[in-house]
Amino acid sequence: MTETLTVDLGNRSYPIIIGRELLGGGFDLSRYVAGSGCLVVSNETVAPLYLDALEACLGDKHVDSLALPDGEAYKTLDTLSRVLDKLVDTKAARDTTVIALGGGVVGDITGFAAACYMRGVAFIQVPTTLLAQVDSSVGGKTGVNHTGGKNLVGAFHQPRLVLIDTDTLGTLPDRELKAGLAEVIKHGAIVDADFFAWLEVNMEALLAREPDALAHAIRRSCEIKAEVVAEDEREAGRRAILNFGHTFGHAIERCQGYGDWLHGEAVAAGMIMAARLSDIGDDAVDRLTALVANAGLPVMPPGIGADAMMEAMGLDKKVVANRLRFVLLERLGAAIVTSEYDPERLAATLEAAN
Amino acid sequence: MTETLTVDLGNRSYPIIIGRELLGGGFDLSRYVAGSGCLVVSNETVAPLYLDALEACLGDKHVDSLALPDGEAYKTLDTLSRVLDKLVDTKAARDTTVIALGGGVVGDITGFAAACYMRGVAFIQVPTTLLAQVDSSVGGKTGVNHTGGKNLVGAFHQPRLVLIDTDTLGTLPDRELKAGLAEVIKHGAIVDADFFAWLEVNMEALLAREPDALAHAIRRSCEIKAEVVAEDEREAGRRAILNFGHTFGHAIERCQGYGDWLHGEAVAAGMIMAARLSDIGDDAVDRLTALVANAGLPVMPPGIGADAMMEAMGLDKKVVANRLRFVLLERLGAAIVTSEYDPERLAATLEAAN
Repeated sequence: MTETLTVDLGNRSYPIIIGRELLGGGFDLSRYVAGSGCLVVSNETVAPLYLDALEACLGDKHVDSLALPDGEAYKTLDTLSRVLDKLVDTKAARDTTVIALGGGVVGDITGFAAACYMRGVAFIQVPTTLLAQVDSSVGGKTGVNHTGGKNLVGAFHQPRLVLIDTDTLGTLPDRELKAGLAEVIKHGAIVDADFFAWLEVNMEALLAREPDALAHAIRRSCEIKAEVVAEDEREAGRRAILNFGHTFGHAIERCQGYGDWLHGEAVAAGMIMAARLSDIGDDAVDRLTALVANAGLPVMPPGIGADAMMEAMGLDKKVVANRLRFVLLERLGAAIVTSEYDPERLAATLEAAN
Repeated sequence: MTETLTVDLGNRSYPIIIGRELLGGGFDLSRYVAGSGCLVVSNETVAPLYLDALEACLGDKHVDSLALPDGEAYKTLDTLSRVLDKLVDTKAARDTTVIALGGGVVGDITGFAAACYMRGVAFIQVPTTLLAQVDSSVGGKTGVNHTGGKNLVGAFHQPRLVLIDTDTLGTLPDRELKAGLAEVIKHGAIVDADFFAWLEVNMEALLAREPDALAHAIRRSCEIKAEVVAEDEREAGRRAILNFGHTFGHAIERCQGYGDWLHGEAVAAGMIMAARLSDIGDDAVDRLTALVANAGLPVMPPGIGADAMMEAMGLDKKVVANRLRFVLLERLGAAIVTSEYDPERLAATLEAAN
């Protein structure tokens, strides 16, 4: 069964289509390619698996393709340049469509290239990892990392379509599946206590990749993300709740130089730190910790040290006038963005986690 | 006398302030700097002349500055990286303001950096060349060149303010003053026959840098540009008329590898070619040619050859589905965007010009 959600952004609204057997020709993607040609950007891992299947959805459109090296370490301005060079080399015109086939790194770089090339061309997301399907492919945030911080350089550029073939999860390594579950858990924790409770019951089914369970988790995550993004596309306010766990998570990634832990793993440990900094009681923190642990995700940072974490948070994008802003929980299922936190509790949280 | 125009773009509207003795402390720019700090980006020519005078307008705001190498040849992704690195090095926060002090190259690169850093921070234009004052600082087009084409990589990012101190033209080399006049002539040719006629009468006064004449030319140019941009910010249609002369002009620049002729010089010769391709009669073409010549600008491309020009136009941004689109004149003072042109007349125009 194929389901369609909508990200409601006025004249930039777009569908998220979720189903099985969409790649390989089951879905007619050519309808979404406005001009005569497109560039599919993927990586060296995903292209051999799904590039042909994607091309089978593109009918008689002219298709160029580019496979980037795989990994967060390549999410750089240099790799962005490679995508832009490819667009130039293939003489891509203003009506070209750029398609991202892969995980969050491919989607973020490719979307940024689509945002910049000729000041913006059409863009389609075909996410093949759970993390990209439940989070990064929806909402229009694109960009690359900088030595100074993660996603420090980028653009808001909404896709025309997000096409999620859940069958692609069949080839996803276990570790990446789990990393995606971190963002699924996040969506429950910040917005939907019922969904959080559903995850507590169904984590085993998700890890066993039961299709119905995965489909529900993906759909509900996309619904939550679409709602939050529709309310606050450019993150002037509420959208920032989607960064729950990310201030700590990004600090972990920075200290590691990106590429040791997966993003979802850093977010998992970061969510527990953010929950400890929140005033939600031990029971709620314990429930979150148990769910993260049951998903096979880390509940503690990898021994970075409190001072290094603090320093790494100094250039987090959520710094406003040198005062840290955190996404905290009011309870499981409700989050707020605030700089009203207890500094001692922050120090204790950092010490306890290291 | 200080005058204020408005670029009307809803919640992204902004003022253009035009006057004398604004730099040096005559204008309080600190009111437009939302946060505590700003980065002024200039170049090695302009910074020694006006950086101190700009800082005098910034009160007690924290000011960092960066001087880029001077010239179109440096309008590249590498230079963009330098600006981004500076923002990171100075730990610029989300509420930072980036100020461009210089000509079109500085404004375009700096605006693009402001668009990308943390997916968009505040931006102010302080143009110091005639070309930047009458054209590139208004309208939100930012970007850099690529070997494949001019401004091929960029973003739409509107400034918060355009501050034009016409006294800065006192230090502008004659050749650059004339290059700026090309865009002034363009505004008359595409929108306002009366202004075109005014330019025919007042070209000598403009070349003599008479302040009242310059002030009128700048004000009327900004009004025309602001009107066109307000109607069509993202260049879905009418805004493209501002590219009159630019399809040919960009081809000239590409063939030269950027940096031999100034942009305005290439546009000057390009406008005459576009007028010849238009069906406006010999008298109108002669009037435009005479005005361009009287401004001390080239009326012919520099012997590139018709074939090289054609090839260079192959990847122009105005290519749609491999069909060239041109901005043509219906008469002096009225332009249209069309792909309905006579191919033989195009061939003849290219031959005649080489």
